[in-house]
Amino acid sequence: MQLPTAFVAYSARAGLRTDRDDLAMVVSRRKCQAAGLFTRSRFAGPSVLISRQRLAGGDARGVVVVASNANVATGAQGHDDAVAVAEQAGRAAGIEPHEMLIASTGVIGRRYPMDLLGAHLSSVDPSTFTTTIDGFARAIMTTDTVPKTAERSVGESRLVGVAKGVGMIEPHLATMLAFVFTDAQIAGPELRRAWRDAVAVSFNALSVDGDSSTSDTAVVFANGAAGPVDMDLFGKQLADLCLDLTRQLARDGEGATKLLVVTTTGARDDDQARRVAKSILNSPLVKAAVHGADPNWGRVAMAIGKCEADTDIEPDRVTIRFGALELYPTPPGRAELDRLRTIMEAEEVHIAVDLGVAAGSATTYGCDLSAEYVRINADYTT
Amino acid sequence: MQLPTAFVAYSARAGLRTDRDDLAMVVSRRKCQAAGLFTRSRFAGPSVLISRQRLAGGDARGVVVVASNANVATGAQGHDDAVAVAEQAGRAAGIEPHEMLIASTGVIGRRYPMDLLGAHLSSVDPSTFTTTIDGFARAIMTTDTVPKTAERSVGESRLVGVAKGVGMIEPHLATMLAFVFTDAQIAGPELRRAWRDAVAVSFNALSVDGDSSTSDTAVVFANGAAGPVDMDLFGKQLADLCLDLTRQLARDGEGATKLLVVTTTGARDDDQARRVAKSILNSPLVKAAVHGADPNWGRVAMAIGKCEADTDIEPDRVTIRFGALELYPTPPGRAELDRLRTIMEAEEVHIAVDLGVAAGSATTYGCDLSAEYVRINADYTT
Repeated sequence: MQLPTAFVAYSARAGLRTDRDDLAMVVSRRKCQAAGLFTRSRFAGPSVLISRQRLAGGDARGVVVVASNANVATGAQGHDDAVAVAEQAGRAAGIEPHEMLIASTGVIGRRYPMDLLGAHLSSVDPSTFTTTIDGFARAIMTTDTVPKTAERSVGESRLVGVAKGVGMIEPHLATMLAFVFTDAQIAGPELRRAWRDAVAVSFNALSVDGDSSTSDTAVVFANGAAGPVDMDLFGKQLADLCLDLTRQLARDGEGATKLLVVTTTGARDDDQARRVAKSILNSPLVKAAVHGADPNWGRVAMAIGKCEADTDIEPDRVTIRFGALELYPTPPGRAELDRLRTIMEAEEVHIAVDLGVAAGSATTYGCDLSAEYVRINADYTT
Repeated sequence: MQLPTAFVAYSARAGLRTDRDDLAMVVSRRKCQAAGLFTRSRFAGPSVLISRQRLAGGDARGVVVVASNANVATGAQGHDDAVAVAEQAGRAAGIEPHEMLIASTGVIGRRYPMDLLGAHLSSVDPSTFTTTIDGFARAIMTTDTVPKTAERSVGESRLVGVAKGVGMIEPHLATMLAFVFTDAQIAGPELRRAWRDAVAVSFNALSVDGDSSTSDTAVVFANGAAGPVDMDLFGKQLADLCLDLTRQLARDGEGATKLLVVTTTGARDDDQARRVAKSILNSPLVKAAVHGADPNWGRVAMAIGKCEADTDIEPDRVTIRFGALELYPTPPGRAELDRLRTIMEAEEVHIAVDLGVAAGSATTYGCDLSAEYVRINADYTT
């Protein structure tokens, strides 16, 4: 997939892992606007802290990603290491060292192998930068099984997005690693607003396992090479692109065999709708039932019920549907059991709940829980 | 295990399931004090609503349990069914119909087979009541693999407890089904206070999967047959008995191979300590790592970090230990790796976190996450 005008990418194996690339960059050849959202974790890593600070400065026009080592909980030395990697990467990419953001993903609690990274970054060949995103998309993967990219366009300008992350995922106001590059010309405040709005309905509606990473980073870069755009149209395309990536992340959730989409309507407000939808989406019992294609709507009722602070939820005003088929209060007749089986066995399962309170709504994205999730995570570091 | 003086038990197969008993009662032959705590679920079943109401009346002296059908989300008819079962059971046990509590556990969303229950309850033979708890403990099991009972004594009086529940377990101010019977003589208000205190440090510190049942019920009955007791001593024994049952429940968590105990110290207050401990205890990534005996303390850091509202948590004041061995900030040396392996491979894994803020503390109980959990729950209803 071609990057928008004046963006270039790099990916290579610095030696952190032996089987594939582990170091990747995208930079803009022009000055750039950028907006970012990050994990709120109290154990946020130095990559997050440094990138957040640099974005506040306003000059960011590239990002370097180190894959397979999160560089989290590594103390003051870990912070200095991240600054050094970002600055070396900036020089290697031909931009000002302070214009380079950094993101990192992988095992927590181990220092970067600075000798490997330093040796590699000091010998980057500028001619190996490409105008495609695919090598970058593959290099940033950890337990991902497929690279995740998406593109949209608005007038003359293009948007290209890339994301990774299939475990330790329930972003709070950000996601794992997600980057969008566009050649649209957009002022900083407008870009930040559009980013916040797009992330709210996409990456923030995603949960693979209810665990929130220490490294979540989502940044959009706009270098203006294609000139100004209609902001309404741009906002819609940006949100749509992010939702595309979100669905790709959910579908590739660790061990996942199905995409699970949970929608709540009729809530007091959108916050309540999101809380109820997330409670269903994150319930291991609901997720296991979806895995087994078991139309166990009682567990959906359970997951609604455990939102116990929401005292305006009344069982006799609630409706539960799988696909378009009502399960509660009126269970399907025998004639509809084939249809129910088809719904449950599909690769994409939709659960819809109406609370019958007011007009709040939310849609969230996740996946089923399989034995494979346990196998993947039972011996990750050893 | 013998019940305390003047309690008798009953268990039988009414036909809700073909392989074992599904109906059980315990009643006091004397008038009784009782105190109860129940699920806060918005989808609480009629058994919970009826028992809560009867306890408020103050005359409860027995409980009937229907196993394999939760009778939840069954509408007004489900409520009438539960009242009818409780009253028939009361008459069968020789107490006033309104003195019988009811608890129910199993699949959500199906009505009781009232013909089977009615036929059985109208022909209960009074001579088949026993003075032991063991039949009752087995009859109330669903996916439990072992019955769970415990006993303690205070002076002349005895306490006998029984519990069930291995999935859909993160009780909020109550647990699945847990009952304690004692012949100590205790006034109602004192009994309620002792019960609240005991449950807070035991059943409320338990989580198998973060899912809260619609049927959680915990009741203590005190019939006074053994005369008055020292309340301090009684409270300690009661809490100790409940903790014993809690550990049995956690150890038998669906698919569990290990008991996981998470302790937080140095918190701002006990609430913060409990929040952080539960975040670790419920993290599927931590649970999977414990399953694989993987000393992945980075996931513990992640689970602490996602308590993002706790802005007084600072990574550089946190200590993480597995067993008594520090992993963060100072990782163990090579000489200690054997000891670490022994800790991780034990049947009981302890994770201890100190936040370095103040003196709040909490201990919580759970289990590892295994592929078996998924298998058990992928096709429960079908």
